[in-house]
Amino acid sequence: MASRGSEDDNNNVNESESESAAIEKVFESKEVPSWKNQITFRAIVTSFLLSIIFNFIVCKINLTTGVVPSLNVAAGLLGFAIIKAWTELLNKCGLLKQPFTRQENTVIQTCVVASSGIAFSSGTASYLLGMSPMIAGQLDSGNTPTNVKKLDLGWMIAYLFVVSFVGLFSIVPLRRMMIMKLKLTYPSGTATAYLINSFHTPKGAKLAKRQVSVLFKSFSFSFVWAFFQWFFASGDGCGFSSFPTFGLKAYAQRFYFDFSSTYVGVGMICPYMVNISLLVGAIMSWGIMWPIIASKKGIWYSADLSAGSLHGIQGYRVFLAVATMLGDGLFQVVYISIVMLFSFIKHKSKKIQSSSPDENKPASFDEQKRNEYFIKDQISNLTAFGGYVVLAIISIIVVPRFIFPQIKWYQMLVAYVIAPILAFCNAYGCGLTDWSLASNYGKLAILIFSGWVGIQNGGIIAGLAACGVMMNIVSTASDLMQDFKTGYLTLSSPRSMFFSQVLGTAMGCIMSPLVFWFFYRAYSVGDPHGSYPGPYGVLYRGIALLGVEGFGSLPHNCVKLSIGFFIGAILVNLLTVVLEKYEKRYRVHRFIPSPMCMAIPFYLGSYFAIDMCVGSLILYVWGRKDKKGAEELGPAVASGLICGDSLWGVPAAILSMAGVNAPICMKFLSASTNKRVDSFLGG
Amino acid sequence: MASRGSEDDNNNVNESESESAAIEKVFESKEVPSWKNQITFRAIVTSFLLSIIFNFIVCKINLTTGVVPSLNVAAGLLGFAIIKAWTELLNKCGLLKQPFTRQENTVIQTCVVASSGIAFSSGTASYLLGMSPMIAGQLDSGNTPTNVKKLDLGWMIAYLFVVSFVGLFSIVPLRRMMIMKLKLTYPSGTATAYLINSFHTPKGAKLAKRQVSVLFKSFSFSFVWAFFQWFFASGDGCGFSSFPTFGLKAYAQRFYFDFSSTYVGVGMICPYMVNISLLVGAIMSWGIMWPIIASKKGIWYSADLSAGSLHGIQGYRVFLAVATMLGDGLFQVVYISIVMLFSFIKHKSKKIQSSSPDENKPASFDEQKRNEYFIKDQISNLTAFGGYVVLAIISIIVVPRFIFPQIKWYQMLVAYVIAPILAFCNAYGCGLTDWSLASNYGKLAILIFSGWVGIQNGGIIAGLAACGVMMNIVSTASDLMQDFKTGYLTLSSPRSMFFSQVLGTAMGCIMSPLVFWFFYRAYSVGDPHGSYPGPYGVLYRGIALLGVEGFGSLPHNCVKLSIGFFIGAILVNLLTVVLEKYEKRYRVHRFIPSPMCMAIPFYLGSYFAIDMCVGSLILYVWGRKDKKGAEELGPAVASGLICGDSLWGVPAAILSMAGVNAPICMKFLSASTNKRVDSFLGG
Repeated sequence: MASRGSEDDNNNVNESESESAAIEKVFESKEVPSWKNQITFRAIVTSFLLSIIFNFIVCKINLTTGVVPSLNVAAGLLGFAIIKAWTELLNKCGLLKQPFTRQENTVIQTCVVASSGIAFSSGTASYLLGMSPMIAGQLDSGNTPTNVKKLDLGWMIAYLFVVSFVGLFSIVPLRRMMIMKLKLTYPSGTATAYLINSFHTPKGAKLAKRQVSVLFKSFSFSFVWAFFQWFFASGDGCGFSSFPTFGLKAYAQRFYFDFSSTYVGVGMICPYMVNISLLVGAIMSWGIMWPIIASKKGIWYSADLSAGSLHGIQGYRVFLAVATMLGDGLFQVVYISIVMLFSFIKHKSKKIQSSSPDENKPASFDEQKRNEYFIKDQISNLTAFGGYVVLAIISIIVVPRFIFPQIKWYQMLVAYVIAPILAFCNAYGCGLTDWSLASNYGKLAILIFSGWVGIQNGGIIAGLAACGVMMNIVSTASDLMQDFKTGYLTLSSPRSMFFSQVLGTAMGCIMSPLVFWFFYRAYSVGDPHGSYPGPYGVLYRGIALLGVEGFGSLPHNCVKLSIGFFIGAILVNLLTVVLEKYEKRYRVHRFIPSPMCMAIPFYLGSYFAIDMCVGSLILYVWGRKDKKGAEELGPAVASGLICGDSLWGVPAAILSMAGVNAPICMKFLSASTNKRVDSFLGG
Repeated sequence: MASRGSEDDNNNVNESESESAAIEKVFESKEVPSWKNQITFRAIVTSFLLSIIFNFIVCKINLTTGVVPSLNVAAGLLGFAIIKAWTELLNKCGLLKQPFTRQENTVIQTCVVASSGIAFSSGTASYLLGMSPMIAGQLDSGNTPTNVKKLDLGWMIAYLFVVSFVGLFSIVPLRRMMIMKLKLTYPSGTATAYLINSFHTPKGAKLAKRQVSVLFKSFSFSFVWAFFQWFFASGDGCGFSSFPTFGLKAYAQRFYFDFSSTYVGVGMICPYMVNISLLVGAIMSWGIMWPIIASKKGIWYSADLSAGSLHGIQGYRVFLAVATMLGDGLFQVVYISIVMLFSFIKHKSKKIQSSSPDENKPASFDEQKRNEYFIKDQISNLTAFGGYVVLAIISIIVVPRFIFPQIKWYQMLVAYVIAPILAFCNAYGCGLTDWSLASNYGKLAILIFSGWVGIQNGGIIAGLAACGVMMNIVSTASDLMQDFKTGYLTLSSPRSMFFSQVLGTAMGCIMSPLVFWFFYRAYSVGDPHGSYPGPYGVLYRGIALLGVEGFGSLPHNCVKLSIGFFIGAILVNLLTVVLEKYEKRYRVHRFIPSPMCMAIPFYLGSYFAIDMCVGSLILYVWGRKDKKGAEELGPAVASGLICGDSLWGVPAAILSMAGVNAPICMKFLSASTNKRVDSFLGG
């Protein structure tokens, strides 16, 4: 989801690249510090602070819907604001020793993104949550002792430490090829680099200041608004988050606007089509399919089941979502592989054909400068290989021995042999399309490993654990390559990038479980009707269940429907790709919704999709009135909305843990119920 | 209240008068139609439509709080928009015979203001409502058959017809003296004239168009918002109007924001000090005094009384408000009389002293032109005197004979003899200060006549009826003089002004009771805890009760407190006047709250004061960001907010009469009550 958003940036970035061709001329007078001086103490402190903030935000979003938007702008702006404020302060006191450089800014950015990347790939809201008894209880089959693991802070941190660093070493040796030779785009990394470069030019700094001020305003608003909402939510079904905006009947089908400024902000950042896809998916599922299926109660499935049983209507919700996601994921993996292969072949043939006139043409000033700094500090191949092997061995020993006995050492070995190949594929694909497929590889890993181990031997846990191994390697590898690109464009040393990535990963491995634990203790995380349903927990476990049991356990007609949705997802994607290639006139492909996005509301309902569409609407109206303002300040407003609301989560969780309840319940009753309640209270 | 708002316009108007000294040069090319052609059919239709709208708005506001803002801008803009749209349409079809003139615009304005003026002076929310059994029941003493009159559409319309037209004839002969010789300012009338003049210059028309578009936008918003709110208010204490914004304890003391866009709009039109006075009064009474008095329950007053009994805490609320209002009113009457006297003497002495060089100085072009048109069409003194005498005789016969036998014919005669004097005083004072004292004269009339008749003979009804006679004469007389001023400045004929005033009054006499009846049938108007408490009903009846019973019936200490507040109100006013005269440096007088405004929340609570302060806040922030925009468009936005919300009152009342209830109750329960309710609903 997250990275899909940036896909559309592709064109923009290319344009701006050609426009500002001689950006290094502007920076010529500024000295580039040595790689050790790029990683300053203040940068580390700032990264640490921002990591905490972003871990909270990502964790909260993961546990509510899992639709994590790109927080790069927020991270960039906040990092800039903190260091700038600090250096200005020191400068005024005459104590400033080292000016604030863009390399330092890049280090912060890299570190923060790495650590909040772990918040996502650590799976506290997906594969790890899927192991918990709470989620296992909801999916009544496969709920056996070997297939459940009680969550605990200790083993979670240990597990993350042994699996997260391996990825960093996996494709380091390929960096020169991918960045300098293949000149992969890495749209997000490039955009981040341009943002950082712009901050450090005088005009850019002015804009950045305005953006920071707007960000803080919308942050304050959204924090205060969340605080205000809290007072009215003393119990279940109370407060603004249960507001039946479109009436009680629509509310029963989960159609309502829940006043969450987080998701309004997320909607402002995500492309229009993502939000519309979500809404279309919601209407299709909760508006049409589920009511139809519910009318078959007693025919298609037993009427005596509990509401949450996977053999009842919940089964349709979970497995149709899973099937759609798997179909979409499989298509993407195959498609990106083909694209990659073609691009590779083309590149090779070019080289042979004409001894590459492209490569021989005199490099631009910017390119010369960038290449020079990119080659300056090296990371030896020996370090990379050695690191990978040593860490993999540790992981192969520790994981089966101490954490998940359900998975065997040779299975881990297989994973570590395949992983670098997938990591390369993903990093390459991401460089082309900005689309990280880490979670898709993770899902496929679940299917394969859980099937291999089998349900008697704890295949569900084994599958989910293997997912973690795969996802972490694949996603950290592509993140690192993104950051190399950013570093390349800001003249930051690859070595400082690597170290700040290592640092960020370490922070993430500790923080992410800690933050998760904070929510986990304060709320009943995973309860589908609570504030933190953690939808991916059920969905990932559902995939593992498919892996161990096949389609056997699904309710009537669910198999047929699932297969239909699986194929449907592939076809829709195929259609999009074909139209994109061959229909250039109206560019109809822009209006085809994404199956992956459509599947999320299958399980959750549409409330967050409505929030996000409200965000789109705000941005659209703003853009109509003041295009420049909306473009420059929109992302800052959105970031502020997300940060403020999410940060209120911290005091809210503390209050909840301390047993402090909100004083008021804003309740929504039907007129007839209200009469009964009034006479009850009166009597 | 209403007219106080415009007092501050005084300075602005004078400035703009000198700036645009030769405004008639601009209009020189445009022909002035004859007086009969000024009153066109389309003007009458437009006036009729707008009269309906404004009668609804004024009636709704009267029945909720009685704080009626100046709706001149809204009336001017809407009148302009309707006729302009109509003439443009005809023009495009080639059917336009008569272009839209400013004289026609003035006719519409005059007619609409006259008819909505009746909505106020008809007393459907004050003295007439005070006669009803509903209000009589709340004030337990004086609730005898002779002192109650069941409201009925028939006699209300008849009564208004016989008392409302008299005032129009009372001071017509003095118009030349007051407008041309004394050159009284009439700030509201002047402002309206400038508005109308500006509409008919090209630049003004452009601004007017923008204002109209903004007005319609805020109108739509506020209508839709009111509509949305409706769905959540299925019962008492449900919906946004019961939102305990500052918590349940504050809500119990009537401190909350009730999301009424009407009062946010009213707050945007009223000067800051009015809103702050309301808030100060609310905090003083509901925040401090009432809790203290409530703690004396069982000591100062019996603990067994019903919540609404006038011998309990409700008595303090009503009579302290009454005392403050009477004190303020008395001060204003005396003060304005003194000011008037001085100005009169000064004027006279000037004339004698130096054979008035002022009057002999060559009149400006504008003045010549205006005088010419003002003298052109005359209304003979015979018509005026004859009209007054005939109408007074009819009234003296009809009212005691058919409507209120409680009042005697000779008492009516006395009223009609005094009234023209008071009417002149008021018209003169209003010309100087823009402050109509009609309701103050009315209140004094209640005291005098109810005391004169006595409780056994139905003194309460007699007093309230006399109030109607007095208020109608006094207020229509000053309204007419205002309109003469507007007409003078727009070259409209006094005769067309007079006729459109007659027309508007006739419309008002029919519409105002009809609209009131609509609300009266749909809701329990006058219920202090309902949506339409009609606060002035109780307050006016309270004054009558004072008149017949003196202070005898009041609870312990209430007399002392009332006298204190009466004197306090006078002193505060005195202080303001003294500071205004002698302390010019910081102009501290601007920061002294108005006792009249402070008294309203004594009875009602502060919710509407909070709404109005929100309006002030919006205007303030807007003005800080964009001073010009706020000044030009603020009144249009406010008018739109008021109109939209108030107009939703029509469908809402129809739904209520048809027995259609809102489907949802948004209820606010304390956390503990919510638990009980949840277990009740669950079990």
